[in-house]
Amino acid sequence: MIDRLIKKIEQCGAPIVVGLDPTYEMIPESMRAECFERHGSTLRAAATMLTEYNMRVIDAVYDLVPAVKPQIAMYERFGPEGMWAYAETTLYAAEKGLIVIGDVKRGDIASTAEAYASHIAGVTLENREYETWAEDAVTLNPYMGGDSVEPFLKVCAERDKGVFILVKTSNPGSADIQDQVLRDSGLMVYEHAANLVSKWGADLVGNCGYSKVGAVVGATFAVQGAALRKRMPHTFFLVPGYGAQGASGKDLRGFFDKDGRGCIINSSRGIIAAWRKGRRFSDRNIGAAAREAVHKMRLDLEGVLEGWLPT
Amino acid sequence: MIDRLIKKIEQCGAPIVVGLDPTYEMIPESMRAECFERHGSTLRAAATMLTEYNMRVIDAVYDLVPAVKPQIAMYERFGPEGMWAYAETTLYAAEKGLIVIGDVKRGDIASTAEAYASHIAGVTLENREYETWAEDAVTLNPYMGGDSVEPFLKVCAERDKGVFILVKTSNPGSADIQDQVLRDSGLMVYEHAANLVSKWGADLVGNCGYSKVGAVVGATFAVQGAALRKRMPHTFFLVPGYGAQGASGKDLRGFFDKDGRGCIINSSRGIIAAWRKGRRFSDRNIGAAAREAVHKMRLDLEGVLEGWLPT
Repeated sequence: MIDRLIKKIEQCGAPIVVGLDPTYEMIPESMRAECFERHGSTLRAAATMLTEYNMRVIDAVYDLVPAVKPQIAMYERFGPEGMWAYAETTLYAAEKGLIVIGDVKRGDIASTAEAYASHIAGVTLENREYETWAEDAVTLNPYMGGDSVEPFLKVCAERDKGVFILVKTSNPGSADIQDQVLRDSGLMVYEHAANLVSKWGADLVGNCGYSKVGAVVGATFAVQGAALRKRMPHTFFLVPGYGAQGASGKDLRGFFDKDGRGCIINSSRGIIAAWRKGRRFSDRNIGAAAREAVHKMRLDLEGVLEGWLPT
Repeated sequence: MIDRLIKKIEQCGAPIVVGLDPTYEMIPESMRAECFERHGSTLRAAATMLTEYNMRVIDAVYDLVPAVKPQIAMYERFGPEGMWAYAETTLYAAEKGLIVIGDVKRGDIASTAEAYASHIAGVTLENREYETWAEDAVTLNPYMGGDSVEPFLKVCAERDKGVFILVKTSNPGSADIQDQVLRDSGLMVYEHAANLVSKWGADLVGNCGYSKVGAVVGATFAVQGAALRKRMPHTFFLVPGYGAQGASGKDLRGFFDKDGRGCIINSSRGIIAAWRKGRRFSDRNIGAAAREAVHKMRLDLEGVLEGWLPT
């Protein structure tokens, strides 16, 4: 997964992952009406909107970016019907050749984590394998420790799959636990988590020098991100918080390694809801606006990397 | 929710929550065959088994216990079809009058947490409310801090709903992060999390003296559990780890307050898979075996509480 991701980033010249986090409010009136007409006033209608909206975005950007990151909460919100939309979205993106990072942030005791690991392992029934969600990687929460991650590491060792484990998240509340200083090591909790993530991924480093076990590091914390880059030389970063959450390219220099590698930056609303900003676009230009937003983001990042991005 | 839960515990004389965590392996051969016949070799068949198995357990125990706790991973494992089984299970349990605690352990940045909060808030579309999952409460992960919990607190304030936030989990790996000692306070991370959980729940204390914001505290850590009981006098505990994970009644005394209240103990496999243990039961006695297991567990807990449990 990680070698494939890095190769695709270089092919695209864009360390960009498009966050597929559609909200009901984001869906154009015309698309809503059409789905309600087809499915009545149901959650199925709402779920269908999400899938159709995502398809427009994916169709527009799949040749420009290496990956998409659907945030499962946006689908789970609509119950089981929403989960179908999540599954359809991951499948459609995978069929377009995109790497799919499921932003699920799961974490539980070992026997339960094994069940969650079906996100990237599928499930076997009576000797037949089923793919449940078409994800190449998922995000995980480390609070419950090593045995909660272990079943996923096993899958990563056996298959071309990966995980990104929360280290320092992009939200202000991340300070509450992650920024507490530990007595013995003098590290903050997130730095301690970073060390654990490095250790968990040590045996899963690919040809590219990065491990299948990556970390989530928020773009909103530039100094911490740069320090984590040094602390975790073999850990690839999934970086949320660009754009709508406030970070821009200049905050991100330190997240990359000296070769301009080492991370992929997520933007969600800034790309998928770009059609709603400015006067040039309408609900007929969801794709065109998304495409333009990707180009802009690519330029922003190129500026920061001063030509380091392979083009 | 919390007043309702405590009242129901006292009515049943059983601080017991039945963990509805069915595995494929647990399903009797006959039930598997029947579901495959009905739905072919599909994930729909597997999901149907989960629902039917759960219905047998629920039918057998709903008059003995106040609550059930389906572990969503066991359903999510089977993809969107599995999520239907989860929804059906929560609905069936709720209709039987059981309090439903969704063990989902979610946690994300505020805008995403708001989406996840539909677990207990439902979702509103064009002025119409939809219930997505029939849960009275859900479990949450605190790693991302206060703003990741806030949308849930809002729902708890407005509705008869609750949450249980991870503090000290029952698995060995919980030591990796939760047991790290902090420099300034000398507290372990989980004790610090306990303080946060107390604070987050301070405005949501019910008539019973306990907050709608509860904590998850593993039965496998008796000493820590007793200390947390003192640290968090207004926080109700959801206690996993009894039975299959190794803890028994004698480990649990300290989790209760002086009135024999303050926690509810989860048992999953020990109850729902009881028919597979011993020679007296077969796959025709899933319910009877579950019922007997609940009685045994109740006796075990009563012994520990030395008659403190209201009967």
